[in-house]
Amino acid sequence: MVRVEMLAVGKELLIGRTMNSNAHWVGRRLARLGSMINEVTTVDDDLDEIGRALKEALRRGPDFVVVVGGLGPTHDDMTLSGISRALGTGLRRNEKALELIREHYDKRGMGTVELTPARLKMARLPAGSVPLKNDAGTAPGVRLAAGGTTIFCLPGVPAEMRSIFRASVEPEVRSMLGRLHRSYVRMKLVGVLESALAPALAKELRRHPGAYIKSHPRGVREGVSRLELDVALVGTDTGRTEAEGEAVADELALAVEQLGGRVESVRGLKGGERRWK
Amino acid sequence: MVRVEMLAVGKELLIGRTMNSNAHWVGRRLARLGSMINEVTTVDDDLDEIGRALKEALRRGPDFVVVVGGLGPTHDDMTLSGISRALGTGLRRNEKALELIREHYDKRGMGTVELTPARLKMARLPAGSVPLKNDAGTAPGVRLAAGGTTIFCLPGVPAEMRSIFRASVEPEVRSMLGRLHRSYVRMKLVGVLESALAPALAKELRRHPGAYIKSHPRGVREGVSRLELDVALVGTDTGRTEAEGEAVADELALAVEQLGGRVESVRGLKGGERRWK
Repeated sequence: MVRVEMLAVGKELLIGRTMNSNAHWVGRRLARLGSMINEVTTVDDDLDEIGRALKEALRRGPDFVVVVGGLGPTHDDMTLSGISRALGTGLRRNEKALELIREHYDKRGMGTVELTPARLKMARLPAGSVPLKNDAGTAPGVRLAAGGTTIFCLPGVPAEMRSIFRASVEPEVRSMLGRLHRSYVRMKLVGVLESALAPALAKELRRHPGAYIKSHPRGVREGVSRLELDVALVGTDTGRTEAEGEAVADELALAVEQLGGRVESVRGLKGGERRWK
Repeated sequence: MVRVEMLAVGKELLIGRTMNSNAHWVGRRLARLGSMINEVTTVDDDLDEIGRALKEALRRGPDFVVVVGGLGPTHDDMTLSGISRALGTGLRRNEKALELIREHYDKRGMGTVELTPARLKMARLPAGSVPLKNDAGTAPGVRLAAGGTTIFCLPGVPAEMRSIFRASVEPEVRSMLGRLHRSYVRMKLVGVLESALAPALAKELRRHPGAYIKSHPRGVREGVSRLELDVALVGTDTGRTEAEGEAVADELALAVEQLGGRVESVRGLKGGERRWK
């Protein structure tokens, strides 16, 4: 297993201004590779909080920490400064980063943009960092190593985060993971309470300890309880993983019927929605 | 200041299945009171991870930890067990919680629902806990104290989380905070780069160190840069807080114009959208 943590930086995430869609997107992306985010920490734009949270994350010994947010030109963009403090590296002007920033302004026909302190700030990286090209914005991403952990810093603007994640983060995670297949089935259930289904879920999990089996209550409409039920499996063999996933889903559908409920629909990750036979 | 942390539990949040809208909602709710969430930690449905994350949160000495998710009847609902382990309290059947669960089934005309182990599980709380009525679902919330910190455990289903938060969490936070007023202005800016505006933002922040001033890049459309700019202030005096917020916004609008940009619209928390004069 590969351990991946995310450290999301930004007060906007803590005051309900912005939904942490970056954690959602990265989690989804990693889940498709057969992995996941193991922990997300969200902290304020504050040097001490950023430094402390990074140190705590590193103590948990992850393979990767993806730090998101706080790379821009404004006063509250202090992620690199917080990281540099936590690691004791100091910040240095990185010529490659400066070149990327210049290129960005050139490409947008803004070659005459003056490299003010606010702009130069985006090129001041923790010593030992490698800047990562940002195809969707100005501030480069940053890659650096700390002990056995690789730290990636990405901008918080979703388009920029995604672009650098795809190009620079995902390939490294994938190569550490190896090739995995994930089967995924989602069922919509009606007329069965989660508490009634609980023993059947536990029983299937005992039979298939590697499976991810999880029910999500979707409220009660017209006196009828509604649930969503997810079944996921990760394995190296595509056929076997798909077959095991199908088998778990079939067993659970049977249990639902025995409890007087009904499977309204089933959806696999690959196929579209289909009615249950 | 009151320090509030959230510990969100659930693999669905880490694999991009579910957006952490609970953190967003709670953050927004607290921001209206003049507070915020200081840190959000999201972990897997795993006893060790839950216990460790709670211990780490308590070490940071918050006034409140709001734990969300993992209170239900299924195998993966293990929040209370994780907390009990971390605090060394043990789990005990709580008669008040059992009564709340029974009442819930009664009210839904399901008085004959058998109290199976899965259902009884929702009444097994860390010793010393107080159950909190859940008006929107089955599993009661839980309140317990650990040192100087009050821990609230709420179900992950948003309607249930919100209902218990409003009824049982918010009044306690509010009484610790006292009565605060928050002024909030959001401006949409066109034609000015974030990096160009950065010095003006920093200058305003030096003048008003208690202000929250933050720009959010909203991309470039037809060669024109777009930003959103938030200004928030918290204070005990309504009139003064509003006036200071307005003054900061006015100064920043002037700076935007001096940089060749334009304020497209301004929105206050109370009023609707209005064009900038």
